[in-house]
Amino acid sequence: MRIIGIDPGYGRTGFGVIDVIGNRMKPVEYGCIETKPRTPMPDRLLEIYSAVTELIVRHQPEAMAVEELFFAKNVTTGLDVAQARGIVLLAGREANLTISEYKPMQVKQSVAGYGKADKKQMQEMVRMLLGLTQIPKPDDAADALAVAITHAHTAPFLNRVERKLTR
Amino acid sequence: MRIIGIDPGYGRTGFGVIDVIGNRMKPVEYGCIETKPRTPMPDRLLEIYSAVTELIVRHQPEAMAVEELFFAKNVTTGLDVAQARGIVLLAGREANLTISEYKPMQVKQSVAGYGKADKKQMQEMVRMLLGLTQIPKPDDAADALAVAITHAHTAPFLNRVERKLTR
Repeated sequence: MRIIGIDPGYGRTGFGVIDVIGNRMKPVEYGCIETKPRTPMPDRLLEIYSAVTELIVRHQPEAMAVEELFFAKNVTTGLDVAQARGIVLLAGREANLTISEYKPMQVKQSVAGYGKADKKQMQEMVRMLLGLTQIPKPDDAADALAVAITHAHTAPFLNRVERKLTR
Repeated sequence: MRIIGIDPGYGRTGFGVIDVIGNRMKPVEYGCIETKPRTPMPDRLLEIYSAVTELIVRHQPEAMAVEELFFAKNVTTGLDVAQARGIVLLAGREANLTISEYKPMQVKQSVAGYGKADKKQMQEMVRMLLGLTQIPKPDDAADALAVAITHAHTAPFLNRVERKLTR
């Protein structure tokens, strides 16, 4: 199974494509889509949309995993991130991907086995689980890979439940 | 000038297309794009995207006017509305429309001449300004028409400033 994980943002959208073969995972491509500050928001949204769509077309993943937002600090920034997140979901839906959303705590629990793991621990676990020699950079890419890994850990159980239900 | 005004939401997205001829405005089409509750968010976003794009293709407006969000009450609902709003901005940007955003208070000031006008006063002013015999329904459509009217009132001054700057 090929999964694209996304950590959405209007300034920086992290992405991480991984392949899951049995119990092993390997990275395919990861990085960050950056948009320029002081660019009108609709232009930034179009850039994100085009870049995510291009990644989907090129890598043909079956599933998209996106982190759920939850903001208390800065509502305005949160709303702008949510706009970018809507774009990402649209791109995934247009490509008919299975889309799953995970809360930050679920991602930490799934990757590091601990819902309050810190950034360093998470990045080290992502590195280990994907067999990388170095921590994936930038941080946004590591975050996106973490969501993809969460889906890799969760998807087999989702399928099992669905199969049970449709039997 | 033809303007499409949008009042974005994930459940209900109001729209209002108007023509501005000199000092007069007339409605072209208005209404509400509804998506079903308990439908996955990516499906709802795709529905909104398709419907807005279809409206743009059919009516060929030059400008899009969208209300700015600002939420204090319910952050989660606010984030979902913002996702829908991102989709609307994307559809406008893809069609190369001039996109303008207006704060709720600006819309009230521009349509009713009073930044704290209530819903009734606003709807009555929208009806009068567009020469309608009845208040436009549903409320989402009236809200979207109000944003379009705000842009009609504001755009001539925007152009004048731009012309000055480029002289």
